[in-house]
Amino acid sequence: MTKSPYGELSNQGASTNIAWHHTSVDRQSLAERRGHRSAILWFTGLSGSGKSTLANAVNSALFERGLACYVLDGDNIRHGLCKDLGFSDADREENIRRIGEVSKLFLDAGVVVLTAFVSPFRADRDRARALVAEGDFIEIHCAADLGVCEQRDTKGLYAKARAGEIKEFTGISSPYEAPEQPELSIATGSQNLEECVAQVISHLVAKGIIPA
Amino acid sequence: MTKSPYGELSNQGASTNIAWHHTSVDRQSLAERRGHRSAILWFTGLSGSGKSTLANAVNSALFERGLACYVLDGDNIRHGLCKDLGFSDADREENIRRIGEVSKLFLDAGVVVLTAFVSPFRADRDRARALVAEGDFIEIHCAADLGVCEQRDTKGLYAKARAGEIKEFTGISSPYEAPEQPELSIATGSQNLEECVAQVISHLVAKGIIPA
Repeated sequence: MTKSPYGELSNQGASTNIAWHHTSVDRQSLAERRGHRSAILWFTGLSGSGKSTLANAVNSALFERGLACYVLDGDNIRHGLCKDLGFSDADREENIRRIGEVSKLFLDAGVVVLTAFVSPFRADRDRARALVAEGDFIEIHCAADLGVCEQRDTKGLYAKARAGEIKEFTGISSPYEAPEQPELSIATGSQNLEECVAQVISHLVAKGIIPA
Repeated sequence: MTKSPYGELSNQGASTNIAWHHTSVDRQSLAERRGHRSAILWFTGLSGSGKSTLANAVNSALFERGLACYVLDGDNIRHGLCKDLGFSDADREENIRRIGEVSKLFLDAGVVVLTAFVSPFRADRDRARALVAEGDFIEIHCAADLGVCEQRDTKGLYAKARAGEIKEFTGISSPYEAPEQPELSIATGSQNLEECVAQVISHLVAKGIIPA
C-alpha cells in the first residue's frame, strides 16, 4: 500500500513513498535507542496473590533504571477499554483478548508492559501468548496458596464469595487453572516483595531484555 | 484499597502498603524523567488526506528528538484489538471508543500517541476528547479537499466507492463531519510533508508538550 507524501510530491513515483515508510520507527530502532528490549510480563494468579503489588513494584524498579514500562491492571482497564464487559464466560474471554491486544501494542511501542489480571483460564492466556513472538511473552505465576490469599483477603472479596454474594469467584466457585510451564513461578505467599521483584528482574536480565 | 506486600509484611499495618503505592510511576514522574509531556494527537480527515503519512512522519521526527511516541492506525488496530468489529454505525462508534481508551493508556504511560483514523463523526471524536484532561487531546484536521483525495486515491478505494463496490464510504456515500475547532488544521492537500510536520511540531513546542 503506497501513501501519498502530499501535494508537491504527488506526481512522483512510488520510491519516495517507500522512503517515507522506511523512516517509521520499529521495535529494533526503539530497542537501540533505549538500550532495552520490550516484553509482555503477564502476571497471573488468584485474587490476593499479589499480582498488582508485584507488577507495580517491578514497574517501579524498571522505571528507576530508566526503562520504558507500564502496568495494565483492573484500575485502568475495567473502567475504560473493557467497561462494556461483564463477568460472563464470553466477556471474561473478550476482556483477556483485548488486554492481550493492547499489550501487543505496548510491546510494539518498545515498552515493557506488565499485566496484572487473575486470567484464570489457560486457553485465554495461551491466546494472548500466541499474538506475539516466542520470547516476547513472559508468564509469571504469582503462586500463593488459596489459604494465604483468603486469609489476606485484601479486598474483602473472599468473604463475600463464601457468603454467596459473589458468584463464580475464582478459587471458590470458579476454577483457577495454574500455568503448567510459566516462564516464572514466584512464591508470593511466602517470600517478601523485594525477593519477588529481584527474581523477575534477574529473569529479564538473563533473557537479555534489560541490561544488568 | 490496600494491597499486601507479601509474606513477611502481611501482619504489618496499612502504612507499609501505602508506601508501596507511592512508588507507582505516574505521568508527572515520567514527564520529569523523559523531559517531555505526553499527549494524544488525534489526526482526522478523509481517506487519502494524508493522516497516516503525516502521523508517521511526525512520529519519526519525535523519535529523532529522543521522545517516547507511538502511532495507532488501521494497520495495528483493525487487525488486532478491533478485529471483531465491522463497519456498521455501532461498530464504527465502538472502534473509535476503544481507540480513545487505548490512547488514554498510552497518555498515562507518558507516550505521545498519534492516532490516524478517518473518525468522521464529531460525536465520536468528542467522546475520545472527553476521556482526558483539557490540553491532553490535540485534534489535527488533515484538511485536504475531497477532489484532491479522490484524485490521489492511494488505495483505489474512491474508485470502488464510485462503482458502488464499497457502501457508506466517507465523503462519497457517508458524511465526513469536519472538526469545528480543531487544535490544528493542516493543509495536507497543498503543502508538502515537511511543512505539515513542522506545523505539528511547532504546536507541540508552543503548548509546552515537547522541548524546543
